[in-house]
Amino acid sequence: MRYVLGIDGGGSKTVCILMNDARQVIGRSEAGSSNYQSIGIAATLKSIQSAICSAVTSTVKIEAICLGLAGVGRAADIENVKVLVQELQNSQLLPIIWDLQPSNIVICNDALIALVGGVGHDVGIVAAVGTGSIIFGRNHQGKTKRVGGWGYILGDEGSAYKIAIAGLQAALKSYDGREISTSLVENFKQHLSLASIEDLIEVIYRQGWKVKEIAALAPIVDLAAASGDEVANKIIDNAAEELIKATSTVINAIFSQNSGLEVITTGSVWRGSSKIHERFTASIINEFPHAKVIFPRFEPAYGAGLLALQRLTR
Amino acid sequence: MRYVLGIDGGGSKTVCILMNDARQVIGRSEAGSSNYQSIGIAATLKSIQSAICSAVTSTVKIEAICLGLAGVGRAADIENVKVLVQELQNSQLLPIIWDLQPSNIVICNDALIALVGGVGHDVGIVAAVGTGSIIFGRNHQGKTKRVGGWGYILGDEGSAYKIAIAGLQAALKSYDGREISTSLVENFKQHLSLASIEDLIEVIYRQGWKVKEIAALAPIVDLAAASGDEVANKIIDNAAEELIKATSTVINAIFSQNSGLEVITTGSVWRGSSKIHERFTASIINEFPHAKVIFPRFEPAYGAGLLALQRLTR
Repeated sequence: MRYVLGIDGGGSKTVCILMNDARQVIGRSEAGSSNYQSIGIAATLKSIQSAICSAVTSTVKIEAICLGLAGVGRAADIENVKVLVQELQNSQLLPIIWDLQPSNIVICNDALIALVGGVGHDVGIVAAVGTGSIIFGRNHQGKTKRVGGWGYILGDEGSAYKIAIAGLQAALKSYDGREISTSLVENFKQHLSLASIEDLIEVIYRQGWKVKEIAALAPIVDLAAASGDEVANKIIDNAAEELIKATSTVINAIFSQNSGLEVITTGSVWRGSSKIHERFTASIINEFPHAKVIFPRFEPAYGAGLLALQRLTR
Repeated sequence: MRYVLGIDGGGSKTVCILMNDARQVIGRSEAGSSNYQSIGIAATLKSIQSAICSAVTSTVKIEAICLGLAGVGRAADIENVKVLVQELQNSQLLPIIWDLQPSNIVICNDALIALVGGVGHDVGIVAAVGTGSIIFGRNHQGKTKRVGGWGYILGDEGSAYKIAIAGLQAALKSYDGREISTSLVENFKQHLSLASIEDLIEVIYRQGWKVKEIAALAPIVDLAAASGDEVANKIIDNAAEELIKATSTVINAIFSQNSGLEVITTGSVWRGSSKIHERFTASIINEFPHAKVIFPRFEPAYGAGLLALQRLTR
């Protein structure tokens, strides 16, 4: 048997999978964050090394590795990660006999491994909608197209962060008398134990809430929409529309109207109670009858393993 | 003659006016920021003391003071500023004989002094639309109403920050193929010397741009709108609509449909080339025929002086 490593390096955790050439998972483990843009290259190396160390329990020869990392896209990023892979090979801590041709080192962003893991092969679209949002596709010719993924200031339309922000803004507009009444005012007050909705200023600015804390309020909006709140429903509809538009743009860019394709939906937003997944699916199927909208078959780290395996069989 | 001090304490500068009871400005000076929420109470005291020191050049008896400060609204804020005024009275650095009854110390937010300075008395509405946005009104009975002013995360609709953000997002949507073509892509690239519009990620996130730097991009959107760019025009129209809605809400809340009133427009957004001021004015006049939309007659620090003076004549 031959062996490869698949690494999924995200902002909250790192997943490592040891896979054999029959696509079987031999070992799997998790470690801390490996978003090197925010934690730096040294801490990223440590997380990845720790994940590999737990996944590989007895000595094994590794012939290919794929690292799908959040925030990696530019040539400079890829060079940095190449150095990191060299460090891994020099490490005395891992029970690994490295046999890596340069062409067997795959470095890519986390959207591609989510797509490959989600579909089980490398053609399709992934709509990753959690704290942030990105739609990424790859066709049979290997052509890729990305829409979104611009982050919480410049984009991330339809994301949990944007849904939460829209909910907070709507609650304050309602409080001001600029917007119809909405249960969001009471819901936010209760959830955050606020005496007045004005105290949102205290919470958001003075306590210095960041993207993750704010995005965690999205379920408040989702539940209000599910309960029939008109303002909340409009927010969820807007989010669904943004995601439909972004996905249509990817499909139109690299797929023909009549080709069958799978759209993988991954991330916290899709699991809401407000049927945002159903709204999205109905609209995509209506526009592209040959498309299927599904949840991931496998996790992104598995996708990384498959991409590493591809290099052995070339 | 009797003398008062009017202080306008904002995020970028502090203005102090020494005024006599004939409403004449005897001294005026500027110093650094006095937004105590962001720089702390000690630095705020220093800015205010420095502004007073330059405005008051020879010994004078001060019988009232008004401080209109950004970010001051809650009871706890007002208590903090009272302590600050006590420190001023204890200071040996100022050539001032203090004769302050507690009732002659006025502490309020910067919207009220902008209104009073802008109109020249204390009834009307101010639409302050710069980096942030707030609409604030006061009627003949002394009743006040505030709409907006929730800051860049929770609100500030129509502000320079929101116009800039909408412009950046539209440029990236256009680049993705989700939005019609817009000159904003090239305009941002040129202005920021970017090789590709994708490099916005580098500028905004990696260089850690904050609210002020981003808000300073609003003129790019404004100029594109003035040149006929459809996407930019839609952004300016949306901003105008938000400001019209917020202002209507204030008028409807505290003024009768037929009472004459003045709406003061202050802040950088109103000075754009895209005729946002004209759009706003036409709509307000149409909805409230007895309203007048004007630019400020006097600056906010002058308004603070007038509010201090009111206490002497009570």
